[in-house]
Amino acid sequence: MLSIAAVEGLPEIASGADLGELIAARPPAGLGGFADGDVLVVAHKAVSKAEGRVRRLDDVVPGERAVALAADHGKDPRHVQVVLDETRELLRAERGVLICVTHHGFVCANAGVDASNAAAGGPDTLILLPADPDGSARALRARLRELTGARVGVVITDSFGRAWRHGQVDVAIGVAGVAPLEDWRGRADSVGRELRATWIAIADELAAAADLARGKDSRQPAVVVRGLPGRHALDDDGPGVQALLRPAAEDLFR
Amino acid sequence: MLSIAAVEGLPEIASGADLGELIAARPPAGLGGFADGDVLVVAHKAVSKAEGRVRRLDDVVPGERAVALAADHGKDPRHVQVVLDETRELLRAERGVLICVTHHGFVCANAGVDASNAAAGGPDTLILLPADPDGSARALRARLRELTGARVGVVITDSFGRAWRHGQVDVAIGVAGVAPLEDWRGRADSVGRELRATWIAIADELAAAADLARGKDSRQPAVVVRGLPGRHALDDDGPGVQALLRPAAEDLFR
Repeated sequence: MLSIAAVEGLPEIASGADLGELIAARPPAGLGGFADGDVLVVAHKAVSKAEGRVRRLDDVVPGERAVALAADHGKDPRHVQVVLDETRELLRAERGVLICVTHHGFVCANAGVDASNAAAGGPDTLILLPADPDGSARALRARLRELTGARVGVVITDSFGRAWRHGQVDVAIGVAGVAPLEDWRGRADSVGRELRATWIAIADELAAAADLARGKDSRQPAVVVRGLPGRHALDDDGPGVQALLRPAAEDLFR
Repeated sequence: MLSIAAVEGLPEIASGADLGELIAARPPAGLGGFADGDVLVVAHKAVSKAEGRVRRLDDVVPGERAVALAADHGKDPRHVQVVLDETRELLRAERGVLICVTHHGFVCANAGVDASNAAAGGPDTLILLPADPDGSARALRARLRELTGARVGVVITDSFGRAWRHGQVDVAIGVAGVAPLEDWRGRADSVGRELRATWIAIADELAAAADLARGKDSRQPAVVVRGLPGRHALDDDGPGVQALLRPAAEDLFR
C-alpha cells in the first residue's frame, strides 16, 4: 500500500533557505519520521526560491524579439524576455502561449517561468526553474540523509500542460535516488506474451500522485510518498530526469 | 493522507464477467471495505475483456490501406486493420508507430489496441478500448454502489506515451463520480496573485498514482484510492473523460 502525505507548516521559502532542514524538521503526521525508501516530492517553486532562481521585472530590459512577441501575444515584454532567456528553442507561439524547449530540454509553456505564488520576492518577481534540477534533487537527498539518516528518493516537479489533453499534471523535472523509468519492454507478461510498449515513467507518476495530496492554494510544496515498491529505489542518485527527455530527433511532435 | 492499494486475487476476466462483483468481493486489505469518497481506478483491459471488446486476428480480413501500412512498418496487416477500425484519424505513421485519434477522441499509439496480457482470448486476440469508457465507468460505479452501498468514483485507465518525454504514464480514459479537472484559473493564490495556468487534470493524476500501487506483470488491474480531498468527489457521474479532451482546433500539436 502507498501512503502519501504533505509536509505541513513550511514557512515561505526565502533565498538561501535550507530546504532540507525545513522539511526534515516536519515529517508528515501519520508517517512518523522519514524512512529508507520514502520519496520526497517537492514542487520546484520551493527549490527555486531557496536557490534564488527568481528575477525582478524591474531589472529586466527586454530585447527586440521579446518586444515583438509581447506585442503579438498581449504580454509584458520584460516577462517574455525572461522566458526567452530560459529558452533554447521556441516551438510554438500562438494564442498567447509560448511553448518552449528550456535549456534543460523540457518542453513546456513559458519555459517554466511563473509569476504566481511569488510572495518571497514580491509581486513583480518571476520564479524560474532550477538551473540544474537533477543537481538540486541530489543535494536535497544528501541533506535529508545527513539530517534524518534515511535514504530517501527525491523528485522535483512542475505542472506541465500536455498536447491533446486539457489541464496540467505534475511531472518530474529533477530526480535523485529513484529510477525515473521502469523498462518492461521485451520482458514476458503473465501469460508469456512479450510486453511490447511498457516503459513506465515512474518519476512522472510519482509527481502526479503527490500533487493529489496537497492543496494548490496552500503552502504545501513538499509531499512524502511511502510504500513505493523497493525495485524503484536506487542506492546511488541514478540517471536523473535526463532519462525522461525524448531527443528532438526521435520526437514526432515538434 | 492518501492511501492507495491494489485489489488482490482477481481471476482472469472473461467476456461477460461481472467486474463490479469481482471487485466488491475483494476490498484491499488495509483499507477494510469500500467507503464513500473512495476512487476505484481500473486498467481498461479488465473492462474491455468483461465487455467482450476483443478481436481474434483469425477473424480479420485486412483492407488495402492496412496491407500498405503494415508493409511500411513491419506489422501484421490484420493487426493494423483492427487499429484502423478503431481510428478516426491517423496523425503520424513513423518508425513502426501509428499515432491515432480514436473514435472517442483519444490521441494514442495504435488506437489503444493491445496484444499483451491477452490471456482471456488466447495469444491471437487483440484487446480494444471500451466502446464507451465513460459509460463503462458509470455502470461500474452504479454496480459498486448497489453491492457495497458506497458512493465511489471510478476512473478507467490506459498507459499512453507522451510527446516530448520518454515512457508511458497511465491516464484516464473513462471517468464517473470524480471531477476530471480542477479549475483554479482566475482564482487568487495564497498571496493574492492570480493563478493563471492552474487547471489540474485530477483524473489523470489519479490514473498515474494508482499505477504505482500495482505490479505490471501481475493481475492487479484494480486499485483503490482513499483520502482524495472531498471537493473532487461528485454526487452525480459528472462530465466524464470528454472534459479532458482538447479539441483539434485548439491543439497546437496535431
